[in-house]
Amino acid sequence: MRKIYMIFALSATSIAFSQAKIVEKVEPAFWWKGMKNPELQILVYGKGVANNEITLSDGIQIKDIQKVENPNYVFITVNTNEISVPKFQINIKKGNKALGSYTYELKQRNSGSADRESFTSKDVMYLIMPDRFANGDEKNDSTPDLTEKADRNLPNGRHGGDLKGIINNLDYIQNLGATSVWLTPVNEDNEKVYSYHGYAQTDLYKIDSRYGTNEDYKTLSQQLNKRNMKLVMDYVTNHWGVSHWMIKDLPTKDWIHWFKEGENGFTRSNYKTSTQFDPNASDIDKKLALDGWFDKTMPDINQKNPLVLKYLTQNAIWWIEYAELGGFRVDTYPYNDKEAMAKWAKAITDEYPKFNIVGETWLYTAGQISAWQKNSKTGEAAGYNSNLPSVMDFMLFGDMPNAFKEKQDWNKGIIKLYDSFSSDFLYPDINNVMVFFENHDTERWNEIFNADPNAYKMGLTLISTVRGIPQIYYGSEIGMRGDKQKGGDADIRRDFPGGWKSDKQNAFNPSEQTPQQKEFFQFTQKLLNWRKGKDVIHTGKTKNFVPKDDVFTYFRYNDKESVMVIINNNIKDQTLDLKYFEESLKGFTKGKEVISGKELSLQKNITIPAKTPFIIELEK
Amino acid sequence: MRKIYMIFALSATSIAFSQAKIVEKVEPAFWWKGMKNPELQILVYGKGVANNEITLSDGIQIKDIQKVENPNYVFITVNTNEISVPKFQINIKKGNKALGSYTYELKQRNSGSADRESFTSKDVMYLIMPDRFANGDEKNDSTPDLTEKADRNLPNGRHGGDLKGIINNLDYIQNLGATSVWLTPVNEDNEKVYSYHGYAQTDLYKIDSRYGTNEDYKTLSQQLNKRNMKLVMDYVTNHWGVSHWMIKDLPTKDWIHWFKEGENGFTRSNYKTSTQFDPNASDIDKKLALDGWFDKTMPDINQKNPLVLKYLTQNAIWWIEYAELGGFRVDTYPYNDKEAMAKWAKAITDEYPKFNIVGETWLYTAGQISAWQKNSKTGEAAGYNSNLPSVMDFMLFGDMPNAFKEKQDWNKGIIKLYDSFSSDFLYPDINNVMVFFENHDTERWNEIFNADPNAYKMGLTLISTVRGIPQIYYGSEIGMRGDKQKGGDADIRRDFPGGWKSDKQNAFNPSEQTPQQKEFFQFTQKLLNWRKGKDVIHTGKTKNFVPKDDVFTYFRYNDKESVMVIINNNIKDQTLDLKYFEESLKGFTKGKEVISGKELSLQKNITIPAKTPFIIELEK
Repeated sequence: MRKIYMIFALSATSIAFSQAKIVEKVEPAFWWKGMKNPELQILVYGKGVANNEITLSDGIQIKDIQKVENPNYVFITVNTNEISVPKFQINIKKGNKALGSYTYELKQRNSGSADRESFTSKDVMYLIMPDRFANGDEKNDSTPDLTEKADRNLPNGRHGGDLKGIINNLDYIQNLGATSVWLTPVNEDNEKVYSYHGYAQTDLYKIDSRYGTNEDYKTLSQQLNKRNMKLVMDYVTNHWGVSHWMIKDLPTKDWIHWFKEGENGFTRSNYKTSTQFDPNASDIDKKLALDGWFDKTMPDINQKNPLVLKYLTQNAIWWIEYAELGGFRVDTYPYNDKEAMAKWAKAITDEYPKFNIVGETWLYTAGQISAWQKNSKTGEAAGYNSNLPSVMDFMLFGDMPNAFKEKQDWNKGIIKLYDSFSSDFLYPDINNVMVFFENHDTERWNEIFNADPNAYKMGLTLISTVRGIPQIYYGSEIGMRGDKQKGGDADIRRDFPGGWKSDKQNAFNPSEQTPQQKEFFQFTQKLLNWRKGKDVIHTGKTKNFVPKDDVFTYFRYNDKESVMVIINNNIKDQTLDLKYFEESLKGFTKGKEVISGKELSLQKNITIPAKTPFIIELEK
Repeated sequence: MRKIYMIFALSATSIAFSQAKIVEKVEPAFWWKGMKNPELQILVYGKGVANNEITLSDGIQIKDIQKVENPNYVFITVNTNEISVPKFQINIKKGNKALGSYTYELKQRNSGSADRESFTSKDVMYLIMPDRFANGDEKNDSTPDLTEKADRNLPNGRHGGDLKGIINNLDYIQNLGATSVWLTPVNEDNEKVYSYHGYAQTDLYKIDSRYGTNEDYKTLSQQLNKRNMKLVMDYVTNHWGVSHWMIKDLPTKDWIHWFKEGENGFTRSNYKTSTQFDPNASDIDKKLALDGWFDKTMPDINQKNPLVLKYLTQNAIWWIEYAELGGFRVDTYPYNDKEAMAKWAKAITDEYPKFNIVGETWLYTAGQISAWQKNSKTGEAAGYNSNLPSVMDFMLFGDMPNAFKEKQDWNKGIIKLYDSFSSDFLYPDINNVMVFFENHDTERWNEIFNADPNAYKMGLTLISTVRGIPQIYYGSEIGMRGDKQKGGDADIRRDFPGGWKSDKQNAFNPSEQTPQQKEFFQFTQKLLNWRKGKDVIHTGKTKNFVPKDDVFTYFRYNDKESVMVIINNNIKDQTLDLKYFEESLKGFTKGKEVISGKELSLQKNITIPAKTPFIIELEK
């Protein structure tokens, strides 16, 4: 880390006189005409570029030009509404001497781009770690431009999974019943080791060459869109990789957060993001939470700097427009400056009103989580409006393991689910909340429950039939395990069997699945495909009944349909007294259980086998 | 319970012709002139009283007279502003025949009554179960009018404690440092057995004769007021005792909640009060929570009936005015109809603007608890405003045992305290929240911690120095234990040693305390007496520092004073790097630890012994 500061110090005082190649980078490399916000800020990077005269061709006016303490950067603002040509030149000269130029293109937008649809509660989100899913192109397992080479023997190494691998398996994902795909970050992460997770990005405008190209990423998105599915980008505003080209030559010292303590800029975050709304948090704790680095390899980005915020905003919009995205998942949301993020989220949703953004709001109470959702009363209590459309229900996530592990008692076992849902009133938009029992950072559900298919079926039934957007994690649909406690992150990010040519088994092919894998897969497939067409699940109302005897029963209903969900977590079969549910069963005489397809009479009581979920479509 | 209904059925059809004694009861028995709300509703009870002509003397107009399905009741409304005489007659006659009369008195209010002070965060609340504290008058241990007689050998029996016993020990309570006293209910509870807890009241206008008289109760209050202390009544709106005279002869069937199921009116509550704000709760669960009976002996009162609500409101005001009360604690708050309770709380606080009412909001998240506090955004999210000034911090209560039992980890141990406090932003009035680690319904702290004085000292330090109103529970200040798990409620409500003449030891007398009792007592006494004069604790701001190494440090400060509280829950001594607290220590060079009286330099780091709290008054 010492290097960073030295390079910065050097750059700040050096002036370069290279000629035609003075322009090393322009970001965004191109843009579009007809955006709602016509203002565009173009970053021009090159040795000493700021010490020269900068003009635009075609009489285009520079609205603002910002030079910063590092002369290798200039930030030019133009109004794209005032530009009638599709391409124009950015010219750099010193006196009469031309030092370089860049041809800037303003492309046409796709029709309907601004009104693009995004993921909603109609969707099921499939979360993939691209390095660990499928290796579609062995030629890019290691690439000359990037340091870490593939080695599948290293648990924390690069394993070779890529975009082509995902594209090759879209039938699998679609057949499974997922309708949107969230990839952990695929932008370039050129850390020397442990780069596969992608959270230490080194270029925000470039797909990591070991995953493919920007074009491949767009192709994946387009292929998903053709299937009426969506690609969701994992956007990281909080930190970049220490090897990011801008981190190595900081535009301004305050581009990132520095600490006196520790190794140069680095001090570790205290990971205590509840300081954000704690009215009594100490300054040092807030600073550590927000400005502390998530890791040594991840300098903490200062979103308060308007140039940084503009960079993050334009980059985000660039990817939406370029790759035809269907949503963002935003990493470590509460670690960011919250006022800046409110502006970021607003800028994006102003541009794309239906675009959905879900923040990783890893807090454990509905009070804290809901405060991060746009227009929440809880946010208002803290004097804050995030403008963030969607949040993650980490309260339910936190409660789910014990809800299914424990026998029901006063506040133990399945009653925890009811307790969790009873705080739904705190959310202004409860349908736009992501529900999940695991992700790439957590213990795997199948590990917690020792690969018990019944526990999986109950868990999946719950998240797929309650309010919100269900999110599942690659591999669990075939019963994959992974023990974070013992094996660390690598163990919860094992390679999907069949993703590599050398794999003994290809679990992507249902006919090759083991009987156990089949049990998990077929249940998932049945349930999620059924869910696809069910407005009553996507947007219906909910009626919860307080769990009894380890059985949780709830209804989803709208004007047209009613579905009764019964989750029997008891170790014994349970017979339900249907009279208790009269208010929701009125008018219905029978039902069809979705998974088994069995018809059930509602004239008499129903018996649910031990550790089993029933999803019953009610019929008159 | 069968009896109840039969008596009601009988009464409803019977008409009585008794003469002079037709008036059996008038409630309230008297009232006051000059209340803000001049309207008074007088209940007149007597066999068939409603079948007669009712007039008032002195030309006083009846504004409204309500007759109900049971002719033994009439409800007369008068405007006290229009009454100039101090006493008037309520006359009952049939034709020319006088059947009875009642002399109604409108008393003068005490000066300043409307503006009476109430308990606030300046106070420490001492909770007493009167039957188990001290027996000041052996003559009333058993009384002829009430069924259950004293028997100290029965864990759930009447033990003889009374108001006189409390009055006798006011020096003890005051010396301890408590400034307000909350008694569990002392109104008449004439259940046959298990009546000592008082929550099955049988007369809302009469102190249980085994505790003393209404006059004794007023005397206790006045003696407290003289000491600048306050008496807080445990008010029960949710249920009355099955032997209440009105329950035995219901004015209207809907005075209480009835169920088709179960034994006549009785069906047990599901105790699931989070249904109150759950937007998706089923009707049956809400009905069970709100209308279900708390116990077989406790018919659930229907606050939705305007006559009931008026009765509860006037009764509450009557006790405030009569007994010169300093506050209410309201039992089972979320079990009541919440709209009716909002009216109840408003009526009382309209009459007495500074009067404090704390509801027993036994829910486990700040989101749910804060929604019960007046003007909360969380309540607003649920479309509700309670008008209730104060709530109980059951979240902190729930977190405290593990906070001190567990070693600190990601979300274990003392970090739980920080996590709990970080949701303070959800409360509109965080200083008006009651903080406690036990009460008469919970495991005793000293049981959980095996009578470890260090655990007690840390717990008491916490609740006595954070925001809010500390509440302590009789006996813990001498190390009393009690195991609810094993011994049931009786075990957490043991007799205070020395409260009975035959007791071997009198722990009220410090010189008779055992060395262990002394250690608990002296710490409590020192801490609470110090707290009395400390505005900085009562109303100061808070600065929390995220716990580290099992040590939680926070500051209370205002313009004049700063106090640093350090709670070292580590099993080893811990040395604090004071630089970390620079923002709160700036300008201070030394401090004095409140309990030990030791001077500490702040020029160097401080070492805190294992399992020890430090309260340091900072000095320049």
